[in-house]
Amino acid sequence: MNFADRLDAAVQSKGNPVCVGLDPRFDQLPKKIVDSALKEHGMTAKAVAEAYYAFNVSILDALSDLVPVCKPQVAFYEELGWEGMRVYEATVRYARRRGMLVISDAKRGDIGTTAQAYARAHLGFTRNPKERPLEEFVADVKSDTWNVAGFDADALTVNPYMGADTLEPFLKVCDANDRGIFVLVKTSNKGSGDLQDLKLEGGKTVMERVADMVHTLGQPRKGSTGLSSVGAVVGATYPEQARKLRELMPDALFLIPGYGAQGGTAQDAAVGFRKDGRGAIVNNSRGIIFAYKQEAYAKHGERDFAGAARAAAQKMADELNAVIRRS
Amino acid sequence: MNFADRLDAAVQSKGNPVCVGLDPRFDQLPKKIVDSALKEHGMTAKAVAEAYYAFNVSILDALSDLVPVCKPQVAFYEELGWEGMRVYEATVRYARRRGMLVISDAKRGDIGTTAQAYARAHLGFTRNPKERPLEEFVADVKSDTWNVAGFDADALTVNPYMGADTLEPFLKVCDANDRGIFVLVKTSNKGSGDLQDLKLEGGKTVMERVADMVHTLGQPRKGSTGLSSVGAVVGATYPEQARKLRELMPDALFLIPGYGAQGGTAQDAAVGFRKDGRGAIVNNSRGIIFAYKQEAYAKHGERDFAGAARAAAQKMADELNAVIRRS
Repeated sequence: MNFADRLDAAVQSKGNPVCVGLDPRFDQLPKKIVDSALKEHGMTAKAVAEAYYAFNVSILDALSDLVPVCKPQVAFYEELGWEGMRVYEATVRYARRRGMLVISDAKRGDIGTTAQAYARAHLGFTRNPKERPLEEFVADVKSDTWNVAGFDADALTVNPYMGADTLEPFLKVCDANDRGIFVLVKTSNKGSGDLQDLKLEGGKTVMERVADMVHTLGQPRKGSTGLSSVGAVVGATYPEQARKLRELMPDALFLIPGYGAQGGTAQDAAVGFRKDGRGAIVNNSRGIIFAYKQEAYAKHGERDFAGAARAAAQKMADELNAVIRRS
Repeated sequence: MNFADRLDAAVQSKGNPVCVGLDPRFDQLPKKIVDSALKEHGMTAKAVAEAYYAFNVSILDALSDLVPVCKPQVAFYEELGWEGMRVYEATVRYARRRGMLVISDAKRGDIGTTAQAYARAHLGFTRNPKERPLEEFVADVKSDTWNVAGFDADALTVNPYMGADTLEPFLKVCDANDRGIFVLVKTSNKGSGDLQDLKLEGGKTVMERVADMVHTLGQPRKGSTGLSSVGAVVGATYPEQARKLRELMPDALFLIPGYGAQGGTAQDAAVGFRKDGRGAIVNNSRGIIFAYKQEAYAKHGERDFAGAARAAAQKMADELNAVIRRS
């Protein structure tokens, strides 16, 4: 099933467009998890990695019936070396088993076979290599569905700076495996305008040119709702630009970061939705997973950090649903 | 020692500016290595990963006294999941032990603490966690030198699309650990112009604006040769643009891809060097590591694939040295 359709179905079924960012930080984890990991694995990367995984499992257990999508930030796992990537893989698998869609927030981008390698790493179709003969195993190495041991997410964030030809290998793998990409168009950070807002001869901005690229690549990849599997990252922190970008990309899925900690409000985020209230998901990372550290959720205490995360996710869902237009 | 100084010293000591790309592909490895890995590990990602590592070790053994720098392409390891990242880490460590500098070609880019995480993953200073008390271990988690188990390369390629503030965390880690970055400015692929060549109001192009950014960030980071640890990726396939970019970034190290298989010649690459013949390295991946498949190196045969790689690297070194100006 087309990725855009799968995402829309998940949002409709859970009744909200919340995406929870799985961005663990060692110094913000509940003490119980940290202590237990250090006791078992000593002062090692493995200890930090196992603590991340234990934390993620608790968060996913608490959220999976409420939140349709999660978005692990790959950097925080990569930071731990291969042990981190091992628990990243485990996290993706656990989230999918729990019935959530997974967006790998890796912001990859490269040329030709290198882009294909990233795509297969994150969006390949996992097969059991023992199930097939050697000739097929070796031949598979060249195919777009090959993924012997990759991370198997539903979608991947990608960086467009190197050009449209560098997006094609990602799309080929998406097409073969019913996955999606979210192209960075307008990011939520303060300096995002350094390049993205620059005005080109003729009056368009760089990000609008990227938006045109996303729109064009998305046309042959629309699902039954008219939404396309070629999505865009559009920060909640720039609602004016988001409005314009929605016009330029009427069919693209929007992944909207910047809600909460970065200053974007529900009203800001709502701008990115299609007129029928579909077509976007809004991410919140620290505001949900570390909610137990906020005054508002103090009653849960550190012990019930997962309950605090659930309460924060529910509040965000309610806030968004109150302002998203549904025409 | 400043990264630019270290790179320059390595190039002067080996007498050439060749960078060998460690981009293994399973279907191009010598049969002996493939068979041995499959026999030991079955049809698994581990088998592919171990074959990559065995291949890299042979290549590094054959090249380390001749070639100053290597550049593993992270995508090809990431494609294999965490097993791939494990041998990627081993490859970086082996190359550094062999006295080569290592550029992690990962093209990472993200905001704030996420960028810091990528920087620490690839450019952190490896310490033995057992050597220090628990309080320090936990405190280290917040520092720019923390790298419990990362990949510990000398430099990292980074993507500037998200803005100058997203480069700062990388630079902070570089400053703390004497490492460098190479910012994508003009890439070697056909579609690189889609965004990079766009003309802005006022006449500059997007890549020239990125070049200005690289130049500015590099000024406080110059070594004794006047070269800066904030480098630029500038493809050999666009010599006219490279000439202009060298003017805009007189002090930046250039990492020049696109030589050989992609069509760039030694003359094209030479344009990126400073007038005194310093300040750039030229990458070749497949043309060196899979030289044994070329007619010109057939006499080495598959058995002596490493000897073929050495001969190809020597030829490239001679070709470059013949055309690089030294004023």
